[in-house]
Amino acid sequence: MTAQLIDGKAVARRVREEVGRGVEKLVADGGTAPGLATVLIGEDPASEVYVRNKRRLCVEAGMQDLHRHLPGDVDQDAVAALLDELAADPAVSGILLQLPAPDHLDSEALITRIPAEKDVDGLTTANAGLLAQGRPGLRPCTPAGVMELLAEHGVELSGAEAVVVGRSVLVGKPMAQLLLAKNATVTMAHSRTRDLAAVCRRADVLVVAAGIQGLVGADAVKPGATVIDVGIHRGEDGLRGDVEFDAVAEVAGAITPVPGGVGPMTIAMLLANTLTAAKVQQGFGD
Amino acid sequence: MTAQLIDGKAVARRVREEVGRGVEKLVADGGTAPGLATVLIGEDPASEVYVRNKRRLCVEAGMQDLHRHLPGDVDQDAVAALLDELAADPAVSGILLQLPAPDHLDSEALITRIPAEKDVDGLTTANAGLLAQGRPGLRPCTPAGVMELLAEHGVELSGAEAVVVGRSVLVGKPMAQLLLAKNATVTMAHSRTRDLAAVCRRADVLVVAAGIQGLVGADAVKPGATVIDVGIHRGEDGLRGDVEFDAVAEVAGAITPVPGGVGPMTIAMLLANTLTAAKVQQGFGD
Repeated sequence: MTAQLIDGKAVARRVREEVGRGVEKLVADGGTAPGLATVLIGEDPASEVYVRNKRRLCVEAGMQDLHRHLPGDVDQDAVAALLDELAADPAVSGILLQLPAPDHLDSEALITRIPAEKDVDGLTTANAGLLAQGRPGLRPCTPAGVMELLAEHGVELSGAEAVVVGRSVLVGKPMAQLLLAKNATVTMAHSRTRDLAAVCRRADVLVVAAGIQGLVGADAVKPGATVIDVGIHRGEDGLRGDVEFDAVAEVAGAITPVPGGVGPMTIAMLLANTLTAAKVQQGFGD
Repeated sequence: MTAQLIDGKAVARRVREEVGRGVEKLVADGGTAPGLATVLIGEDPASEVYVRNKRRLCVEAGMQDLHRHLPGDVDQDAVAALLDELAADPAVSGILLQLPAPDHLDSEALITRIPAEKDVDGLTTANAGLLAQGRPGLRPCTPAGVMELLAEHGVELSGAEAVVVGRSVLVGKPMAQLLLAKNATVTMAHSRTRDLAAVCRRADVLVVAAGIQGLVGADAVKPGATVIDVGIHRGEDGLRGDVEFDAVAEVAGAITPVPGGVGPMTIAMLLANTLTAAKVQQGFGD
């Protein structure tokens, strides 16, 4: 392979260490260690693994783990009441409702109960509006992590052609806004895009978040482009992304692996958001 | 000229007539005629003209004109108190704060006092978030008017290449979201875009909202493209747009004139938003 490998594990570690130092400074300045309330409903094994990792790294960064676990048959009102309690609790800097919630619950209605200033996942409509209007707010963790990877690798964004494949509320749409804020010319491509490979080939920076394994091959990549693969798929031969890694690595200038690329950044940015939220709430905001 | 002319005056008239029939139906169904509260501060002559037109067409559509005029030296608290009063008044379906407000006032802070469901200009962060997340809400009037023009002229958007020039919170950014929601492949271009003409030449649908007179010439337009000019500039030889009309009209398939293109649509969509807001507030929502 000729492309430079973008090492998400290393960047994520650096971000987490910075958060750890930020927590120490907050406490030394007279503040309180940030508290992260992860809310897990039921016993989904994958969700349990995700939440366990978030809690572990939260503690490692010097924050308070304020985890709450509800039974899988809990009703809407009980979850709402818990979220209201966490919203009112000054020890809770950030609230993360682990998704997907069980089918009998209305996740969207639950998320609206999380105050914007504690919405460390950046999921609420309020934070989406702040991002769209270019105002300060908590940004969704995965696209924020991609921005961190691009910054760490010195990728020039101003005036660059950026193409985002996928338009989810969680990743694709906020990704486009964040790239636009850095003065890239941004194209939003998706399942209805006519000639996806041709559109992708325009990109100096290509972010693929379509959720389709191997969607982007070497024919869709301009030589020298930076390729960020947000996809993650578990197959018989291990984890794979939305990008055909081996082939694209021969064309791209830089590329994220799967695993070890974007994945580790998501939790790192969650911790960074929790610190930011705590500082604002405690009057230590920038 | 070879391009088809997109007649905004005619489409705006049709929309206003539809709103008028919608108001009649709402009243016949037992509801109340929608009320639009335009808030004008000071004596700016251009703002006075805009507000007068809005009030006149509001009455013409059968709505209540609930105009409020404040002196130019009013303080922030007094404007805030008025907005709170209008927010609480059930006769007021929509609130429009005419901008720009005098320099000594903080317009952003004032706008946040307008409840999302009465924000008929679609300016609030709440409505920007609803748009970004693809949820129902009140959309900014000018981009909503552009969508109406495209629909009226049967412009195919699904899979089309759309380019939006300009990234303002009021026009460019919501415009891109609305085109994306109709399944266009959308590129957001702006002052930092490297080769603007080349990017624009990709467009099947080109919306120019850059605020720079004559920015887009014939070299930036693909033959047969639909060109929408949001710009409006008052020069010695009358009103002009962001597009070099005479030259581009020889290349484009369809084009909006300035004046008489996008301009008349903005008020028409304001009235449509006011009717929508009234119906939702009165329990006649779709």
